[in-house]
Amino acid sequence: MPIIDLNCDLGEAFGNYKMPNDPELMKYVSSVNIACGFHAGDWNSMQETVQLAMKEGLALGAHPGFPDLQGFGRREIQLSPKEIYQITLYQIGALSAFIKAEKGELHHIKAHGALYNMASKNKSMAKAIVQAIHDFDPSLYVYGLSGSVMIQEAESLGLKSVSEVFADRRYEKDGSLSPRSLENSMIQNPEDSLNQIRDMIHRGKVISRDGVEVSILAETLCIHGDSSHAVSVAKTVYSQLIEEGVIIKAPGK
Amino acid sequence: MPIIDLNCDLGEAFGNYKMPNDPELMKYVSSVNIACGFHAGDWNSMQETVQLAMKEGLALGAHPGFPDLQGFGRREIQLSPKEIYQITLYQIGALSAFIKAEKGELHHIKAHGALYNMASKNKSMAKAIVQAIHDFDPSLYVYGLSGSVMIQEAESLGLKSVSEVFADRRYEKDGSLSPRSLENSMIQNPEDSLNQIRDMIHRGKVISRDGVEVSILAETLCIHGDSSHAVSVAKTVYSQLIEEGVIIKAPGK
Amino acid sequence: MPIIDLNCDLGEAFGNYKMPNDPELMKYVSSVNIACGFHAGDWNSMQETVQLAMKEGLALGAHPGFPDLQGFGRREIQLSPKEIYQITLYQIGALSAFIKAEKGELHHIKAHGALYNMASKNKSMAKAIVQAIHDFDPSLYVYGLSGSVMIQEAESLGLKSVSEVFADRRYEKDGSLSPRSLENSMIQNPEDSLNQIRDMIHRGKVISRDGVEVSILAETLCIHGDSSHAVSVAKTVYSQLIEEGVIIKAPGK
Amino acid sequence: MPIIDLNCDLGEAFGNYKMPNDPELMKYVSSVNIACGFHAGDWNSMQETVQLAMKEGLALGAHPGFPDLQGFGRREIQLSPKEIYQITLYQIGALSAFIKAEKGELHHIKAHGALYNMASKNKSMAKAIVQAIHDFDPSLYVYGLSGSVMIQEAESLGLKSVSEVFADRRYEKDGSLSPRSLENSMIQNPEDSLNQIRDMIHRGKVISRDGVEVSILAETLCIHGDSSHAVSVAKTVYSQLIEEGVIIKAPGK
Repeated sequence: MPIIDLNCDLGEAFGNYKMPNDPELMKYVSSVNIACGFHAGDWNSMQETVQLAMKEGLALGAHPGFPDLQGFGRREIQLSPKEIYQITLYQIGALSAFIKAEKGELHHIKAHGALYNMASKNKSMAKAIVQAIHDFDPSLYVYGLSGSVMIQEAESLGLKSVSEVFADRRYEKDGSLSPRSLENSMIQNPEDSLNQIRDMIHRGKVISRDGVEVSILAETLCIHGDSSHAVSVAKTVYSQLIEEGVIIKAPGK
Repeated sequence: MPIIDLNCDLGEAFGNYKMPNDPELMKYVSSVNIACGFHAGDWNSMQETVQLAMKEGLALGAHPGFPDLQGFGRREIQLSPKEIYQITLYQIGALSAFIKAEKGELHHIKAHGALYNMASKNKSMAKAIVQAIHDFDPSLYVYGLSGSVMIQEAESLGLKSVSEVFADRRYEKDGSLSPRSLENSMIQNPEDSLNQIRDMIHRGKVISRDGVEVSILAETLCIHGDSSHAVSVAKTVYSQLIEEGVIIKAPGK
Repeated sequence: MPIIDLNCDLGEAFGNYKMPNDPELMKYVSSVNIACGFHAGDWNSMQETVQLAMKEGLALGAHPGFPDLQGFGRREIQLSPKEIYQITLYQIGALSAFIKAEKGELHHIKAHGALYNMASKNKSMAKAIVQAIHDFDPSLYVYGLSGSVMIQEAESLGLKSVSEVFADRRYEKDGSLSPRSLENSMIQNPEDSLNQIRDMIHRGKVISRDGVEVSILAETLCIHGDSSHAVSVAKTVYSQLIEEGVIIKAPGK
Repeated sequence: MPIIDLNCDLGEAFGNYKMPNDPELMKYVSSVNIACGFHAGDWNSMQETVQLAMKEGLALGAHPGFPDLQGFGRREIQLSPKEIYQITLYQIGALSAFIKAEKGELHHIKAHGALYNMASKNKSMAKAIVQAIHDFDPSLYVYGLSGSVMIQEAESLGLKSVSEVFADRRYEKDGSLSPRSLENSMIQNPEDSLNQIRDMIHRGKVISRDGVEVSILAETLCIHGDSSHAVSVAKTVYSQLIEEGVIIKAPGK
């Protein structure tokens, strides 16, 4: 039976700015990526999210991003590989302390936003991130864009990679994500979205933006948590996959 | 032979603002308290300071403070005990990641500035800090003001406490530090300072501001790193103690 | 006919964290207090809020707070009067630049959160705030808690004060707000709330928590913008007052 | 007689991190660019620097930079032109409030670090900056790299531009600065530096890195304030120019 992990970026509250959907979203995913206070999140959301996710039995991931609360980690910032290494290590450490205090276990790392995107293509950035993960704990899983430089670098350092796919993004015929600047880069229709997921999970294929069938490795699927209808989308995807006999679970669990 | 630990707050650089005395100061202390990015320090200074201190064989401590870079952690901020717990855990975690990556070992925790002062007297704050330390790793040493509530709370939770004394501060007859607002609260004369250290180490006594001899436990002595003549003071204290046959080493080393 | 100003704290978004009620709330108030990036708000929300409020013809106020985004300016921070002066001046200047660029006019200043509360009682803090307002522009209105030290200090410096009252807070018999820690400090029932407003506007009186009638000057009423039902409350208060023949307008307009 | 303005970036302290050379440097320049709290500086340094510079009779400039204290505004951050406009306006406003409170006058704006460099070449960024300056006060001077897009955009909006040259940087034959990545991009020898200044001021020429004589407009010369020997360099340049009969004064003064 096909297996997939459903992951979601959570714990993106900050101070008075709450993320009320988090508890509900946790019911429909198998792993969570928890913001560490750089692009979003703070000590309060980190503790709370770790506690909630542990109650739900989810795989706990750190979600390091650029130091850019105001930009939500979505702006490119010119950092040296040395600093990329350092901000990754800092954030993993901070989150892991909350997990340790709750006697939980850190499961994986997934970079956020601009850091994720840049490290999908930029070898020295990807190397810096995976080296930080390796130096902290070489048994951690590394989530990265399916087919990206990030996945390659994780594997070349002997780390366990997990290839991530998206239900609501179009792909190019080389297997990369269609740039958001293009008109057709997002899939608006829920049914199209579900079909793309089915293709990816059951057949290891995706139909590219210009109609070509491309091979793709789908080990984890990103469930977006920040739209207003995030919960209903998550619920639909989850239910549909369960119905089709897909096993939803985090790697190694 | 009498034994004492000499500790110093280091790694208090931030970005372009450097702390050039740090490498020199490390020669004259046995343990360091490394800023974790909240009141001072950043990912860069943290990595660098951990690396330097490990080369010198020093005991590595986390130095959590209030989230207040502009105020250098010296302003009181009204945080709940829950938040005090969280900021302590966050900072210990962040620093410990850098230590882990270098295959070093975290040795102790010492709160900084206003956090240190408030937790010396405020039981719920002290409880929050020691609980965070305990939940992260109950084998860590807790540095705190000799005779303070912080030391009591550390011990009542079964943690190993280390009582800290100061060479350049006057004491009241109840063993507390004289408030800085008082005229005679600081010891200006280096010879007076050395005499106070001698009394504390060899005899377990200190002469209070109004001339009374008070018992005091001196397990670690704070060497200030942020004055312009910090290095020469540190060197003098170190040399003098060595000459007098005092063994300078961190607890448990 | 009785006159009152309805004011609301707006522009409290930050980066990705939006405040979607702002445009709707603007329909039911006569003046706005715009966050300046210290306790909430950023350059983007400031520009947007100034533009929106000018379209609605509202009186524009700066809403300076403590430098504490994570705590939303609600935590007491130990700042010297000199720094209180400086943070007030900085924030007024920043907001006024956006107003100047839009060819609008700054109308008033209202301190936020912990800064507001502390300056209601602490003379040196109140002095620092009103001095900053005076030095920037002595023709500005100063909003402050009715009967507070802040109002006194504004007047003693020759500034135009505007006394603020609350619809959902209980008052003590000395005219001060009942501390939130007390059980009955908040008025839960909308009808009770409206009655309190009526008493304050029409009769210059308020019934204190323990049933005594107290004199109170009501020149502006605070409409809270941050609850989930803020819009409907604002609409009700506004409609009710209009119906009762109260003129709703900002001072000097 | 030739005239030149000597400008220096000052007020780059932050909290506990002081810039002790500032008062001394002010003796050898005619205009100052004051950090506004984004890349460096805070409310305290802003007030203090404005007060000091006014005592010395210097032309007061705002020195807006990227919101990046840890990177000192030297890292490129991907901001939209709209945000570039907003951060410029915010910072000008904040500084101008301190100047207004002291009854001084804002004289010019000079962008800092990565913002300066990017806006020297990027038309939409330059446009955004000069639009913000224009909307705040169209009578302000705009300092920019001699021959840059920034100067062009300032002029095309009708603002008064001031062309800036550097004494310690090499130039390319197209008049642009040699990239710092090149080996010979910095002039190490003080005598060579003085010769370059002489060429630029007296003859409107500079010898490029590969030996070609290039025309250059030198209206203001940047004196660096952040090296350890900044004061002695400033003093030498100042004295030498005075001796050669150059008039040192800010534009319009």
